[in-house]
Amino acid sequence: MLINGQPSHLISALDRGLQYGDGLFETLAVINGKPALLDRHLERLVAGCQALGMVQPDINQLREESRAEAAQTSRAVLKIILTRGEGGRGYNPASTMTPTRIIHTTPWPDYPDDHARVGVAVRLCDTRLGWNARLAGLKHLNRLEQVLARAEWSDPGINEGVVLDGADNVIEGTMSNLFLVKSGQLITPLLDQCGVKGIMRQVVIETARDLAIKAEEQQVRVDDLKAADGLFLTNSLIGIWPVRVFDGVEYPVNLIDQTLLRTVISKGFATV
Amino acid sequence: MLINGQPSHLISALDRGLQYGDGLFETLAVINGKPALLDRHLERLVAGCQALGMVQPDINQLREESRAEAAQTSRAVLKIILTRGEGGRGYNPASTMTPTRIIHTTPWPDYPDDHARVGVAVRLCDTRLGWNARLAGLKHLNRLEQVLARAEWSDPGINEGVVLDGADNVIEGTMSNLFLVKSGQLITPLLDQCGVKGIMRQVVIETARDLAIKAEEQQVRVDDLKAADGLFLTNSLIGIWPVRVFDGVEYPVNLIDQTLLRTVISKGFATV
Repeated sequence: MLINGQPSHLISALDRGLQYGDGLFETLAVINGKPALLDRHLERLVAGCQALGMVQPDINQLREESRAEAAQTSRAVLKIILTRGEGGRGYNPASTMTPTRIIHTTPWPDYPDDHARVGVAVRLCDTRLGWNARLAGLKHLNRLEQVLARAEWSDPGINEGVVLDGADNVIEGTMSNLFLVKSGQLITPLLDQCGVKGIMRQVVIETARDLAIKAEEQQVRVDDLKAADGLFLTNSLIGIWPVRVFDGVEYPVNLIDQTLLRTVISKGFATV
Repeated sequence: MLINGQPSHLISALDRGLQYGDGLFETLAVINGKPALLDRHLERLVAGCQALGMVQPDINQLREESRAEAAQTSRAVLKIILTRGEGGRGYNPASTMTPTRIIHTTPWPDYPDDHARVGVAVRLCDTRLGWNARLAGLKHLNRLEQVLARAEWSDPGINEGVVLDGADNVIEGTMSNLFLVKSGQLITPLLDQCGVKGIMRQVVIETARDLAIKAEEQQVRVDDLKAADGLFLTNSLIGIWPVRVFDGVEYPVNLIDQTLLRTVISKGFATV
């Protein structure tokens, strides 16, 4: 683990990342010792800094440190945490704080290899996501809603949970974004009030449009999920997982356009 | 600073308090070397652990460590942070994690002494609080909304900002709870969907009721604030601050029932 460029695994307990969750993070797949989609993740990190009014980080430094950490592994998860920095009295952030950067790898999760082929089982969570237009889309460090939603089940046969907002709109999975397949087109929930705009979500939208497959962000309800021809989940680690069953409804898992899937994989985005 | 009972100021960067804001905190006034209202704060911490499904901490240990830290100062702020602990893969919390406890004092804030007498100036924030019934009321470590709201102004003549939810309900200040005085009665916003149920808020409600002053939790709108006879703010550090001006509307600052004020002060709750 590198903390501010130095090998360490300790940070100050006065860091605002701990005190307030005042920061951002990125989770990347390391494939053959290289962080996948690194530049896209760093771009999102910079955009997040702007949204939170944090001092802009040195992107070249983050890139070099990320590559150095990833190079020590073959297949792993690379996490980049960037906090607003240490200190400052109360909630008011000093405008000149130096961000704390934490870069570390963890072992590749033990997801069964056949999830991408045979699909996964998904439940509906009770925990709701709160609306905050200023935080919507960002991968920030305030993740208690995801922790509570994920803690709702312990059955290892359930692979993910779908989370709604307070107005019963479908938003995302606890750790993934969600797509509906309907009449050969893709629909994914609007994330203007809550949710995380995943890198893999964006890659899928762009790739679909390149292939002239319509891909729209829309308001989505649970009934829409149940009436969909198919569902799939995306994130930077899982790539694309088709949903085999959601809340008692079964779906075919071979509905994802194979060219789309191959294109996403071939770009090195997916890890299946 | 004590971390898990040992003098230190460093924590593991893998602690879930940093990774996800997965934890709780308490902020107490230290008066004459003693943490004010310690048992109430520890009770809230235990209730928060239950709400988040965290392992219950050893309350006696927290009490002893808090007293030991406070005893090294005269007038200070004591902060107790309790995270779910270190490690665990992804959002899913292991049910057996040992909470991390961080206990430290910081210098007493440089609030002018006359705030409690002449009142403070308060603005209306743009940042909105998201609804989450499971997190509402808790003093948890996901505080980005407060950071963003507090970052909206830098004018030192403004002492606090009022924050609304997404449905235009008045909820609280960025670092305080809010009371309206209306026809000799007290009204404070309902905090069932968002907001922090402050210890001083509860003390004021209980003290008012002991004095046969009606004190109700209600839905409050900005127009209600503007039509109130008076407003005041509470938290464990400021005690009670009357509001002199809110968003252009001026209020008398001597409307708080003096017996209420004296009772709160005499109990050692307020530090004015």
